[in-house]
Amino acid sequence: MKKLINDPKNVVHEAVAGFGAAHPDLVRVSHDPNVIVRTDAPVAGKVGIVSGGGSGHEPLHGGFVGPGMLSAAVPGAVFTSPTPDPIVDATKAVDGGAGVLHIVKNYTGDVLNFETAADLVAAEGIEVRSVLVNDDVAVKDSLYTAGRRGVAGTVLVEKIAGAAAERGDNLAAVVAVAKKVISRVRTMGVALTPCVVPHAGEPSFSLADDEIEIGIGIHGEPGRERIRLEPADAIVDRLLEPILDDLPFVNGDNVLLMVNGMGGTPQVELYIVFRRAAEVLAEKGITITRSLVGNYTTSLEMQGASITVLKLDDELTGLWDAPVHTAALRWGR
Amino acid sequence: MKKLINDPKNVVHEAVAGFGAAHPDLVRVSHDPNVIVRTDAPVAGKVGIVSGGGSGHEPLHGGFVGPGMLSAAVPGAVFTSPTPDPIVDATKAVDGGAGVLHIVKNYTGDVLNFETAADLVAAEGIEVRSVLVNDDVAVKDSLYTAGRRGVAGTVLVEKIAGAAAERGDNLAAVVAVAKKVISRVRTMGVALTPCVVPHAGEPSFSLADDEIEIGIGIHGEPGRERIRLEPADAIVDRLLEPILDDLPFVNGDNVLLMVNGMGGTPQVELYIVFRRAAEVLAEKGITITRSLVGNYTTSLEMQGASITVLKLDDELTGLWDAPVHTAALRWGR
Repeated sequence: MKKLINDPKNVVHEAVAGFGAAHPDLVRVSHDPNVIVRTDAPVAGKVGIVSGGGSGHEPLHGGFVGPGMLSAAVPGAVFTSPTPDPIVDATKAVDGGAGVLHIVKNYTGDVLNFETAADLVAAEGIEVRSVLVNDDVAVKDSLYTAGRRGVAGTVLVEKIAGAAAERGDNLAAVVAVAKKVISRVRTMGVALTPCVVPHAGEPSFSLADDEIEIGIGIHGEPGRERIRLEPADAIVDRLLEPILDDLPFVNGDNVLLMVNGMGGTPQVELYIVFRRAAEVLAEKGITITRSLVGNYTTSLEMQGASITVLKLDDELTGLWDAPVHTAALRWGR
Repeated sequence: MKKLINDPKNVVHEAVAGFGAAHPDLVRVSHDPNVIVRTDAPVAGKVGIVSGGGSGHEPLHGGFVGPGMLSAAVPGAVFTSPTPDPIVDATKAVDGGAGVLHIVKNYTGDVLNFETAADLVAAEGIEVRSVLVNDDVAVKDSLYTAGRRGVAGTVLVEKIAGAAAERGDNLAAVVAVAKKVISRVRTMGVALTPCVVPHAGEPSFSLADDEIEIGIGIHGEPGRERIRLEPADAIVDRLLEPILDDLPFVNGDNVLLMVNGMGGTPQVELYIVFRRAAEVLAEKGITITRSLVGNYTTSLEMQGASITVLKLDDELTGLWDAPVHTAALRWGR
């Protein structure tokens, strides 16, 4: 295992410290436990938004803390849910009197710990609502998950819910828009290589030299099938068909197409994937009106990619386009 | 070799096509030869800026085409200089009557081909000036290079020169500001793993399981030394010392600190590097007033990172902060 780290035990702490040092205009960070909070939180009268989960998926979630997106992020140990304590700290830190939304990826540990935290802060009079992101169409009931997993579509939920909170929507309205995104977003991914969790020191699974895994989870959980490596266009077709069938996406739809790198994939490959996905969507009469290409929900140094499609309407497009200023996503300011 | 590609011969063509499909608001692309041009080029009365070089370093340079940065980018084959023809095409496409600046990384092939292209367009009455970026302090005279190599500091030259062109500076003034950045920016990198050029199909060099290369070039050219893997903090110290000694950067300086991923490095590692670099700079009385962390000048899927330090003043800070809208760098609009 070769990594640019010091003691594997300190990876998250030191990365969070570095994040705070790099972005003092956006966030303040605290340690033991690790929490990343917007510098201007709490914002009086506006809904706060907290997300979190295991580390190793950066820029998710800390990279999305800032005006127009998350109010705070709670990074757990690598691939391990944060405990309720830092979720409680983050929730209190961002409550401006209008309540707080928890955006939770659907993994058993995350669901449980966010629920416990919500109960604890509710007892102190802070109103908390939660939404569960479960955009991965690959498998139902997986390692760590009952139901579908939450993966890269989480970024779109966080951006659009963040825009709704920023414009002053009340908690019920922010919940409604987050649920609307969740109901319209679908994802599927592929892994070419495994990744190495620093404190484990060994690959989390193994793939033969000519083998890839279709439908991989963002922790290397099993997907749908292992197949021989194929040309990118054939792989894209395998990922896109279950996505399009699921909602379903149909002729006349306007969509946001996101091609997400798993952390170790060269950018040229992501654009080769985008090219084929755009070709398939065009054939089906589906129009790409917004796009996002890059490393947004990663699995450490895993090579691979995921494709996410979100069915847009005027409201969601407007909220997507609204100004955002975070370390990983920024426009309009 | 596992990659998300189709025929290795078509990697650049298909990636450029995908880039065009993903960012039709920013660029138009053409093929045979590949050129990426701002949709609104030429802008009458403003200096055009063209950069380019071998592919495989994305988002450099195509990801930086757009208002406030480059007018056009010319991607060659992977790790291979573009020929003069597409450089000529790009230069003509962006000439708005105020002349064109070529930003060239210091590699023998790039220097020669940009020079030839400049001569050809000069014969047609377009005024062209060139600047050579040579920010890599690791080695002098390397594979492919006489003198120092141009690496990640190129991004800062492109951003700041782009802002000068955008505000309406004439060609001489844009050249002057680009040269000012070049005179004040220094970089050094490290590789943990090699990368695989698609049409070669094999790693461009090899490193033992416990070995890293200090001072690596962005094509895997030899650096200063191969050493056993060390903790990240020790590696950062090895990279930062030659950078700081070279200019030199001194107590009281304000700097932009960039930590650049080589393509296959998890983001947590980049922030661990940033943390230590910030610590060292603070000890020396050097203040980080701007920062940039992410994959900006890559070597395909190479694992590793580079550190870049730019000595700022009010003019450079203002130009850095000026609005920019490209696929890979965006703020203020």
